[in-house]
Amino acid sequence: MPPLRRIDVVLDSVKRLQRIGATANLLNLLQKQHPADLAEVLSGLSDAERRSTFDTLIGKNSRLAMEALSELDAEVGDALLAERPADELARLFLELAPDDAAALIDRLPDELSAEVLARMRRKDSGDVQHLLAYGEQTAGRIMNPEVFALSEDLTAGEAIEALQRSREVEMVFYLYAVDERRHLVGVVSLRRLLLVSPETPLKRIMTSELVKARVDTDQEEVAQEVANYNLLAIPVVDDENKLVGIITVDDVIDVIKDEATEDILRLAGVPADEHVFTSPWEAWRKRLPWLGVNLIAATLAALVVREFQATVEQVIALAALMTVVASMGGNAATQTLTVIVRGIALGELTWSNSRRVLGKEALVGVANGIVLGAAGAGVAWGVFGNPYLGAILALAMVINLLVAAIAATLIPIALRALKIDPALASAVFITTMTDVFGFFAILGLATAFLPYLQRGL
Amino acid sequence: MPPLRRIDVVLDSVKRLQRIGATANLLNLLQKQHPADLAEVLSGLSDAERRSTFDTLIGKNSRLAMEALSELDAEVGDALLAERPADELARLFLELAPDDAAALIDRLPDELSAEVLARMRRKDSGDVQHLLAYGEQTAGRIMNPEVFALSEDLTAGEAIEALQRSREVEMVFYLYAVDERRHLVGVVSLRRLLLVSPETPLKRIMTSELVKARVDTDQEEVAQEVANYNLLAIPVVDDENKLVGIITVDDVIDVIKDEATEDILRLAGVPADEHVFTSPWEAWRKRLPWLGVNLIAATLAALVVREFQATVEQVIALAALMTVVASMGGNAATQTLTVIVRGIALGELTWSNSRRVLGKEALVGVANGIVLGAAGAGVAWGVFGNPYLGAILALAMVINLLVAAIAATLIPIALRALKIDPALASAVFITTMTDVFGFFAILGLATAFLPYLQRGL
Repeated sequence: MPPLRRIDVVLDSVKRLQRIGATANLLNLLQKQHPADLAEVLSGLSDAERRSTFDTLIGKNSRLAMEALSELDAEVGDALLAERPADELARLFLELAPDDAAALIDRLPDELSAEVLARMRRKDSGDVQHLLAYGEQTAGRIMNPEVFALSEDLTAGEAIEALQRSREVEMVFYLYAVDERRHLVGVVSLRRLLLVSPETPLKRIMTSELVKARVDTDQEEVAQEVANYNLLAIPVVDDENKLVGIITVDDVIDVIKDEATEDILRLAGVPADEHVFTSPWEAWRKRLPWLGVNLIAATLAALVVREFQATVEQVIALAALMTVVASMGGNAATQTLTVIVRGIALGELTWSNSRRVLGKEALVGVANGIVLGAAGAGVAWGVFGNPYLGAILALAMVINLLVAAIAATLIPIALRALKIDPALASAVFITTMTDVFGFFAILGLATAFLPYLQRGL
Repeated sequence: MPPLRRIDVVLDSVKRLQRIGATANLLNLLQKQHPADLAEVLSGLSDAERRSTFDTLIGKNSRLAMEALSELDAEVGDALLAERPADELARLFLELAPDDAAALIDRLPDELSAEVLARMRRKDSGDVQHLLAYGEQTAGRIMNPEVFALSEDLTAGEAIEALQRSREVEMVFYLYAVDERRHLVGVVSLRRLLLVSPETPLKRIMTSELVKARVDTDQEEVAQEVANYNLLAIPVVDDENKLVGIITVDDVIDVIKDEATEDILRLAGVPADEHVFTSPWEAWRKRLPWLGVNLIAATLAALVVREFQATVEQVIALAALMTVVASMGGNAATQTLTVIVRGIALGELTWSNSRRVLGKEALVGVANGIVLGAAGAGVAWGVFGNPYLGAILALAMVINLLVAAIAATLIPIALRALKIDPALASAVFITTMTDVFGFFAILGLATAFLPYLQRGL
């Protein structure tokens, strides 16, 4: 059993204090926690305990409660907000930064979210509504509109004073310089500001070649830029180059994790938003369609086998051996597919270098087919006592592994070029395809060379 | 075809300038690039072009060349350094931060790396050797030992002066305060420093409750802390709480990406360090063992089929239907396994909440089994005209999907408790297991109810 973590100790205390109704002590303990830790504690409680703990906290420290809530899984968090009236929700969302509030409001039922937005103060609601107007998974949607910008005409000393006066500005490390119409013209790092004399104009120390995102840039691209250039934040501009927001590195980390999760889950044919604590009903409802597609594909594979039923009847060993060809093809395809999809996600694989990758995968497929086919042939010969059966198994394996390599390389690359998520060419899909091909290869070959197979038996 | 990116334009220019031998222009263009972009350009060149471009650049700007090199894939980067004498390598590694140098030196052949370390200047080599002494994937291995620390007895004004004098300190945003024996006692953010009057002592403005890592903390844990608490950097201390290094958020992003890649690849039975551009020989050599294990497992599944050969011979439709049971089990298991492994990686799934998750997965497995089994039974009845065959298919599917759900949940959780990477319970392994169970379930049931199956045919 893994060692007890600090958070587990807190979790146990929360459960105990709640059970004995020591509300003051409970609140005291809860308020000492970081929002991220609090979210973890809430996740570890039962539904009833969670609701009661959250309600206790929200009465005393609604900001902390809401910050913890926005770190929770979507389903768990939404359940805690359910059944609250619109004016209470409006008041609660005002505790959060606009980007966090927007993410939560976006998940409310349409009618309720409109009512909540209407009840939030004019300015804040405007900010949030603005964010919600951008497409999902774009820079505009995840940016914080409260960005610290200064006129390029100020001096370093004036900039420091402005910084000292500012409050509530999320993690300032870069000062963005704008012209009189708020066009983004440059950036000065906080550190640079300290190193020059106070009368130096910002214009002279700012860097005007800066990395920025547009409101409609895909969030995955934004994350790649921040990661590649080791940035702490990236400014977001509209189509006139006016500064409208900022995305900080902590949000980028969330994007990177979410995108990786999405890829991993999609490859396995799981809906991208499933978590370990998604309710069984929800998980079942969402996974079923994929398995349904798979059932159709598996039926197709079964029909291929039925087509060659006469051959299998005459050489019953084929019923066992055909499963080996299909299984090997599926696994080799999964290997190739995964390397390709991850390569695309990391930006390593582009259209221009895809031919080289196809060559590599085809070569690996054939090489694996020869070695594993030879080994399989040896076993088949040994077990069933017919060398021709072994030879057919080997040949079918080479064919199936080559087909697997080519399909698992080209399908995700083609999807990418068509702007469809390449991870949707999931392992579920590709392995069923290799089943069909595998059965076809070995049973087709067996039918063609049937006299040789019967002779040895 | 995707639109042309800026980097593709640079790539084309580099190729052209190289071809016509315009070295001065080429150097000019290369030196304008960010190291990350340069790495991408180098990746896009052929091996010969890359070597020649890199050699040209290293003669003129060895720092930029080395910085680009440390962003390259391992195999590609190592090839560019191969065959250089130890004293040249020593000189080149001195251009890099110790943590980056350590990562490259670690990949050299043992004898050469010892020679290189011996030739590096005493202090720097010491730094690098120190890092290499820590275990792989620990905080000590990836930290930068050049951390900006100040005595807790200084004032804010003195701290700013010290900061202004310092150079070459990687991305300073937090000032760590230490006592006279370099024990870590507190932290002050750069921003805070600006907001107080110069005579304020650091002791009064520093936070002494700070998140830190120990040299032997696993890098994945470090990354989770930085991500959870939205930090820009985390200090690293030895077992006496002495400050020995710093890990910045850009390195954390690399860790998060690498760990996600590792999980994705391992789930597919691909070695964790493979990239799209790994050479075919290397990729083949590393993927073969997994496929070899799979061949053994697939042979096992084939032997199960052979065991029931007499039954299959009498009801040949089973040869087709058994593949459906195996395929559905494999895919359902892949879904469950992926959700579990990702949940563990994200820290959502712990030992204490695992029972709840097992219940969910078992429930989803049975529900899927019933619905899909019923659908499959209908098809089987329709195609083969025997209702009993359909009933057996459905029952086998429920059994196999339940087994798949339980195995795919418990195996990764158990591996985790044993401190083995849960992603090693790869889909390759689990799907082969569900093949064996699936064949056993349908063929075993068929053997038991053989008279009913024959009656209808």
